[in-house]
Amino acid sequence: MRIRAFAANHAGEKLNYFEYNRDSLNNDEIEIDVQYCGICHSDLHMLNNDWKITQYPFVPGHEIIGKISLVGSHVRNLHVGQSVGIGWKSRSCLTCEQCMTGYHNRCLFGEDVIVGRYGGFADKVHCQDIWAIPLPKNMNLKTAGPLFCGGITVFTPIYQNNIKATDHVGVIGIGGLGHMALKFLKSWGCEVTAFSTSPEKEKEAREFGAHHFVNTTDSDSLKSLENRFNMILVTSNVDLDWNGYVNALKPGGNLHIVGAAGAMKTLDVFPLISGQKSISGSPIGNPSMISKMLEFCYRHNIEPMIEEYPMSEINQAFDRLKSGKARYRIVLNNDFK
Amino acid sequence: MRIRAFAANHAGEKLNYFEYNRDSLNNDEIEIDVQYCGICHSDLHMLNNDWKITQYPFVPGHEIIGKISLVGSHVRNLHVGQSVGIGWKSRSCLTCEQCMTGYHNRCLFGEDVIVGRYGGFADKVHCQDIWAIPLPKNMNLKTAGPLFCGGITVFTPIYQNNIKATDHVGVIGIGGLGHMALKFLKSWGCEVTAFSTSPEKEKEAREFGAHHFVNTTDSDSLKSLENRFNMILVTSNVDLDWNGYVNALKPGGNLHIVGAAGAMKTLDVFPLISGQKSISGSPIGNPSMISKMLEFCYRHNIEPMIEEYPMSEINQAFDRLKSGKARYRIVLNNDFK
Repeated sequence: MRIRAFAANHAGEKLNYFEYNRDSLNNDEIEIDVQYCGICHSDLHMLNNDWKITQYPFVPGHEIIGKISLVGSHVRNLHVGQSVGIGWKSRSCLTCEQCMTGYHNRCLFGEDVIVGRYGGFADKVHCQDIWAIPLPKNMNLKTAGPLFCGGITVFTPIYQNNIKATDHVGVIGIGGLGHMALKFLKSWGCEVTAFSTSPEKEKEAREFGAHHFVNTTDSDSLKSLENRFNMILVTSNVDLDWNGYVNALKPGGNLHIVGAAGAMKTLDVFPLISGQKSISGSPIGNPSMISKMLEFCYRHNIEPMIEEYPMSEINQAFDRLKSGKARYRIVLNNDFK
Repeated sequence: MRIRAFAANHAGEKLNYFEYNRDSLNNDEIEIDVQYCGICHSDLHMLNNDWKITQYPFVPGHEIIGKISLVGSHVRNLHVGQSVGIGWKSRSCLTCEQCMTGYHNRCLFGEDVIVGRYGGFADKVHCQDIWAIPLPKNMNLKTAGPLFCGGITVFTPIYQNNIKATDHVGVIGIGGLGHMALKFLKSWGCEVTAFSTSPEKEKEAREFGAHHFVNTTDSDSLKSLENRFNMILVTSNVDLDWNGYVNALKPGGNLHIVGAAGAMKTLDVFPLISGQKSISGSPIGNPSMISKMLEFCYRHNIEPMIEEYPMSEINQAFDRLKSGKARYRIVLNNDFK
């Protein structure tokens, strides 16, 4: 099968029209006609080879919505014509300890959509059946893509860390991931605080679900917040005042990181001990969690706020992403003729 | 009431015989005749004013075993003559959010035995009734003291982090706390690995319950251990190869710190995210947890390994503690005439 796509040939370069031949589909795979695909900051990291795992030509794109066009002979749970989404992962081994205990997203022997294979900025893309997640009927296809990477990344810790409607939760970084976290937490019934370096986002942050907005360019802003939060979710990918945020946790509270930061330069241990606090992280979520999230979003009418570009304007879309001005997630529509 | 004790007058000085008048007992307090009292590294930290909270004259001692000699008028659950232990805390407010949810050890308005009051290197000591925990009948009084601070400190994370008999658990630092952790984990049914800088402790570590012994003076020792542990319990109080130990955790694993270290100099965030790992800490345990631990120890015949000194030789005992040669906890017996 001949696939049309957009690819970069070297780190940091612009994307150009690119064609490749897909190998025959494995028995357990499906292929979709791509309708929409979100752009995630990890597409940009991969494009720049920040993580030293990029292979070129590189086709980004892993927040993919489309209709199934082909199913492998062993696929039992999906059918041609079905609307599905595909996120970061395209395969799990199904047999390692992680897969066998329901953590297919932590599989050490899996495959990721844009690592060592071609992604979703294309007219077609394929994956293992379990990673193509059916959309609820009547879901808005145009806005659903970002849920499959950014969305599930912030949904999983809310669910797995047992956040309750009575909890006070902070969200650091109000961008692609953070604005979805605010929407989830609002519908989860929590008291929600947004932490942002962009005071101009306050109005929208409150509309998304924040009860409080903290402008973190004010270096004193954390001092009055000690012992306040059950969880603080870190969606930004910069070095932070980690000790200040640990201090802002209630005893027993948790600082959960999903923004792919580098290293904590100094983290005081004693406050973790005396306040029984924790620092943790997590990668996306398993297929069952994605289904739960989709059903939750549909029932609560939660959609990412997006800016739409045609896929042929992929380079302009990347420029917009890099500018930091996108509100709040960019989605490409497939305009291959 | 006139109390006889041993106190230091200035930071780091030797202890001398000291007498003080105890105020009248509060309605909710009990007093005990001290029989035994363990020495904990935090007694040494407090003696040296390492945490800048020590008041002098300073009477250390917070792993105390004795018989109740006096009960306040509102005390309903304890009676004169009963054998009890007293650990780090001497009072919780009973009304804050932490106390009201069962976390009396995290009370922000409580009182600690050796902070701003006189501790257990004395012939008598008092505390709020809930922090005097009755001992199981026939428990060995001589070895029970260290359970009340060192013991509960390592027991609580095993219980609260839901460690199961099928889990593989590592213990870093085989000293006062670590050797008790090995004994607990053996009886918990786990696969247990001891990490130590002292290869001469291997034989005893295996007797306490370790199936594996890792000599961490070998800088390559961690490299072969990736994705191995459900929990690694840090009982040492020095800076460690934090990233190496995070790498040794299984996906979903937890590095739990109870050794009062300073700051982590560099902690990589990405492995926490990709492996859904966490770093946490905890302080001692609540009274209910201490009761559970005592019952567990009695049923499994678990006792700390101790060296015994008369309380009058307190300075020799401190020297022995500082030498690092004590195997593995020092207990003073009350020899006041």
